Amino acid sequence: MNQRDEFKRIGMRLRQEGLVGANFGNMSVRDGAGFLITRKGAFLDCPEDLVFVPLEGAVPPDASSEYRLHREVYRLTRHRAVVHAHPPHAVAISLHRDCIIPVDSEGEMFCPAIPVVNGPPGSMEMAERAASALKDGVAVIVRGHGTFCGARTLEEGYVLTSIVEHSCRVLLLSQVK
Amino acid sequence: MNQRDEFKRIGMRLRQEGLVGANFGNMSVRDGAGFLITRKGAFLDCPEDLVFVPLEGAVPPDASSEYRLHREVYRLTRHRAVVHAHPPHAVAISLHRDCIIPVDSEGEMFCPAIPVVNGPPGSMEMAERAASALKDGVAVIVRGHGTFCGARTLEEGYVLTSIVEHSCRVLLLSQVK
Amino acid sequence: MNQRDEFKRIGMRLRQEGLVGANFGNMSVRDGAGFLITRKGAFLDCPEDLVFVPLEGAVPPDASSEYRLHREVYRLTRHRAVVHAHPPHAVAISLHRDCIIPVDSEGEMFCPAIPVVNGPPGSMEMAERAASALKDGVAVIVRGHGTFCGARTLEEGYVLTSIVEHSCRVLLLSQVK
Amino acid sequence: MNQRDEFKRIGMRLRQEGLVGANFGNMSVRDGAGFLITRKGAFLDCPEDLVFVPLEGAVPPDASSEYRLHREVYRLTRHRAVVHAHPPHAVAISLHRDCIIPVDSEGEMFCPAIPVVNGPPGSMEMAERAASALKDGVAVIVRGHGTFCGARTLEEGYVLTSIVEHSCRVLLLSQVK
Repeated sequence: MNQRDEFKRIGMRLRQEGLVGANFGNMSVRDGAGFLITRKGAFLDCPEDLVFVPLEGAVPPDASSEYRLHREVYRLTRHRAVVHAHPPHAVAISLHRDCIIPVDSEGEMFCPAIPVVNGPPGSMEMAERAASALKDGVAVIVRGHGTFCGARTLEEGYVLTSIVEHSCRVLLLSQVK
Repeated sequence: MNQRDEFKRIGMRLRQEGLVGANFGNMSVRDGAGFLITRKGAFLDCPEDLVFVPLEGAVPPDASSEYRLHREVYRLTRHRAVVHAHPPHAVAISLHRDCIIPVDSEGEMFCPAIPVVNGPPGSMEMAERAASALKDGVAVIVRGHGTFCGARTLEEGYVLTSIVEHSCRVLLLSQVK
Repeated sequence: MNQRDEFKRIGMRLRQEGLVGANFGNMSVRDGAGFLITRKGAFLDCPEDLVFVPLEGAVPPDASSEYRLHREVYRLTRHRAVVHAHPPHAVAISLHRDCIIPVDSEGEMFCPAIPVVNGPPGSMEMAERAASALKDGVAVIVRGHGTFCGARTLEEGYVLTSIVEHSCRVLLLSQVK
Repeated sequence: MNQRDEFKRIGMRLRQEGLVGANFGNMSVRDGAGFLITRKGAFLDCPEDLVFVPLEGAVPPDASSEYRLHREVYRLTRHRAVVHAHPPHAVAISLHRDCIIPVDSEGEMFCPAIPVVNGPPGSMEMAERAASALKDGVAVIVRGHGTFCGARTLEEGYVLTSIVEHSCRVLLLSQVK
């Protein structure tokens, strides 16, 4: 399967599960001395041409506005793919916590402590904090914004995103007693 | 893509994301000295023929019953498309607030203050209040009824609708502590 | 469109909107001196052959186990179609109320007071109470069980079901303050 | 329909209803002196080749990591199919209860008392407890993990899973007063 088809397959799954709405979110995969990222404003389930962004140097103007975060992840970590989504339970719970500790078995196994960082979307400040959290981890939430998962493949990044949202949803639902 | 296909594409997305159910909601685009609007009772994901409504003069009987609001928006504002949906979290939160202040980053960026107005659906009273709110804004909620988003295109109106619902959902979920 | 295709179209919409899960729910349309109803255990989105049930006399063994309720509606009211679903918010709210008063504009317009009745699913007792409520109304909830909507067509019955669930969901969400 | 197509059909329904996300969950059917189970890490809606696991003896390395539980069910009970999913409301409610008593009519009829057991996912300890609960029952929840339903067919196992989640969702929603 070529890259674009794989982006589309994962984008469709992210949308069908309610992990992104509208044209929220973006995704990338490491590619040589840079990475391929979704276009600015693209719908993840209908990706148009992907944009190559080098690790150093000028960035094409049509790259996703979150390219700084993706670039820092590829500079600072070993991850080969990054998936960014806006799952509603993860976003809501991030408003009140600095670190999320899942109580369901998948969360406990795959992301036992999910850090929450601050910073304006698209900023270098946020990019550095999130990338730093992904050095030793696989998932981070930018407060009030969304999840970033680092993985070997887009599929793995999507699975992690799904786990984070499931864990946050279970945490919130378990408050209703 | 012709107009009807574009209405269908956006209608399907609105429905798949749960922003409208059944045959709720309606949409229009500016067209010369009037606008094209969905038919009364049409399912947004299966639009039949669109109906042309002039800015002045007689209105075809099969135009959406909300045509007054759409007409006022085209008379009073620069918007070129209007999307009306019934997202459940936005409708619920509108019952208790006069203005909704998003706390998530997309809401803060694209609709930092969402006014709530009163008025019976389909009435001239509601049409004027909502259109007035869209003069300087892109989204308004009619209390207990639904969202109206003004935009350059149907796609942009849908994206705004999705953002408003996401912001309201995050606000409600963040109350569960 | 033939009857079976219409049942399938409406069944698919009911399922896609989360108004029924698995093989929950059933539907029927008046047909001469009886009615056509979904088969016992059928998935509404994959209806097999429909079953004809006469208003008087023996009932085929493969008719939906809720045939009594449908039969009473056709005996006692003018409705020409009945849609039964299990929408989660409507079922939940019915546990604590004897009558549901919508606060959203669609509910206020189309079903301003939704009675809740008791009775074991499939029983004659429940059938009579629900049919009685549908004499002057279009929707009733059997407590802890589900909605029954009477209408002119399956499509109208589905739209009413969607409105009832939307109203109940808005009522429940508006409790989260 | 061959086995793989049937696994795919049920897997798609489980996913569409939100009973599993990502590559969560697994399923099996009894087959002679063993059972056919989904592959480790498989997406239930896109099952690849199924894996045969004998009731006694070596287990192929690519069988689902939950094979112990499935095997114990086939050893200790008469069930002919097992469906394991991660429905969010069932998982959340299992954190606070040792036995779930549905208050909706489907739950009351099909699974009037749903036991909750403890144990690490994939462990022999959990397998024995869950299989033991399925001797006289059709559904069990492993705390904080997910549902296991024993049935005659995959379809029946899926329907039970849907009922358990519906019952748990109604229980949780009915707490919002």
